Amino acid sequence: MDTVAVVGVGLIGGSFALALKRAGFGGAIIGVSSPPVTAAALERGIIDQALPLEEAAARADLVYLAQPIGRILDTLRRLDPVVREGALVTDAGSTKREIVAAASMHLRRCRFLGGHPMAGKERRGVEEAEAELFENRTYALTPLTPTDLDPDFVEWITRIGAVPVILDPAEHDRIVSFTSHLAQLASTALAATVGQHVKEHLEISGPGLADTTRLALSSYDLWRDIVATNTAEIQRALGAYIQELEHIREHLHSRSLEDEFHNGAALARRLRS
Amino acid sequence: MDTVAVVGVGLIGGSFALALKRAGFGGAIIGVSSPPVTAAALERGIIDQALPLEEAAARADLVYLAQPIGRILDTLRRLDPVVREGALVTDAGSTKREIVAAASMHLRRCRFLGGHPMAGKERRGVEEAEAELFENRTYALTPLTPTDLDPDFVEWITRIGAVPVILDPAEHDRIVSFTSHLAQLASTALAATVGQHVKEHLEISGPGLADTTRLALSSYDLWRDIVATNTAEIQRALGAYIQELEHIREHLHSRSLEDEFHNGAALARRLRS
Repeated sequence: MDTVAVVGVGLIGGSFALALKRAGFGGAIIGVSSPPVTAAALERGIIDQALPLEEAAARADLVYLAQPIGRILDTLRRLDPVVREGALVTDAGSTKREIVAAASMHLRRCRFLGGHPMAGKERRGVEEAEAELFENRTYALTPLTPTDLDPDFVEWITRIGAVPVILDPAEHDRIVSFTSHLAQLASTALAATVGQHVKEHLEISGPGLADTTRLALSSYDLWRDIVATNTAEIQRALGAYIQELEHIREHLHSRSLEDEFHNGAALARRLRS
Repeated sequence: MDTVAVVGVGLIGGSFALALKRAGFGGAIIGVSSPPVTAAALERGIIDQALPLEEAAARADLVYLAQPIGRILDTLRRLDPVVREGALVTDAGSTKREIVAAASMHLRRCRFLGGHPMAGKERRGVEEAEAELFENRTYALTPLTPTDLDPDFVEWITRIGAVPVILDPAEHDRIVSFTSHLAQLASTALAATVGQHVKEHLEISGPGLADTTRLALSSYDLWRDIVATNTAEIQRALGAYIQELEHIREHLHSRSLEDEFHNGAALARRLRS
């Protein structure tokens, strides 16, 4: 791996470039983004060079797509004619089934490996990029065949401090519909409900409401694409959550509520272990 | 205010005692709790003396009830015959309507002021007590009449760093059904749902799920009493939340979802402003 093209130099793309450099990557990192973004990235030393997609893809051994999902799908549609023969293309999109399907439909001259680093911050953009973003974070990889799993790339994932986890794209999308997408919508819905019913005296609240509504600060921009590419799974997860809430509402005074507290606490502890 | 009896020397009662001392209270603080708890509180210098309720109440100008709600209701039933004439009794329970009603039914020889400090921690118990717990936190006060609002006590609330907010007990219970009780049940239900549907690869999750399920670590012990004393409001809040989630599920692809993200983000920002 000598030359990396990072397409979309935002929080994730910029952090990946910084993390590679910190981990000892000595090759060139080319950024593909809008002029103000690549200017900022060049100034902070995040990328070494800024080029249009066609020129960057022609030179890179690794093409790292860190755009929003809809833009990743667009890029996959026009990448094949310009990509370097045999290069590895990977992405950092939050859903995997549609991206992996688009890649296997459109890419002929290169290999593809779907990826999803489980890292993020409240704020986005290249200004927020940091070399430590992936440290101790899971990095999901969704190869369609074992040969997609480029050992060199997997080693770099490990070197930047992330923990690679290999699974099927559909299984990935089912899991994140609960662990990420449902958590987001539960937080957004909670914040919207509180906002609608508590117009005054919002200061009558403790630190728990702040924790539970932190995700509600997320920007819709990213979520439109996530929802559009994982609709059926998200609907199922929302349905299961609504059913659980109905169950709690109907059993507020029974032992059943105690069971739900135990089940919830068990999951919260598993997450922290 | 010369002598304070803290009934229930746990996280809140212990922290109130420590906060008073740090704020310059020079009188005696008597603890009423089980022997192992008062022993620990005496050793840490949180209380000056341990006595049974009858003896403590006979001496104190201020009786601070920091037990679970069910125990506060019990104490209110047996306090009047033993309390010092004209003393102020206050409490730190998380719901106010039933407590204020019980106080006004049972207390004749003393005054009563309902209170609810919006402070807490994941872990309970006297070991967790800290003098700074109330700093910059809202301290709800729910007087039935203006004369319940003892100026000396309100000044101590301010001196320990808290921000007193005065409101009606029923309005308090309506607000916390959204800002606290719904947030708790939403978090518990989310954790229980994720636990049920994600048996493997829970590591495919980001920091957002940890934030959103932090409240799910809460102990059911405290919540049984909260739910029992605010059932109707909690059912209404759960109903509103379920309706919001149904709306989101039905509008995953419409502009409506964007509106909900905006509404949710607006509340989350209001909380942080």
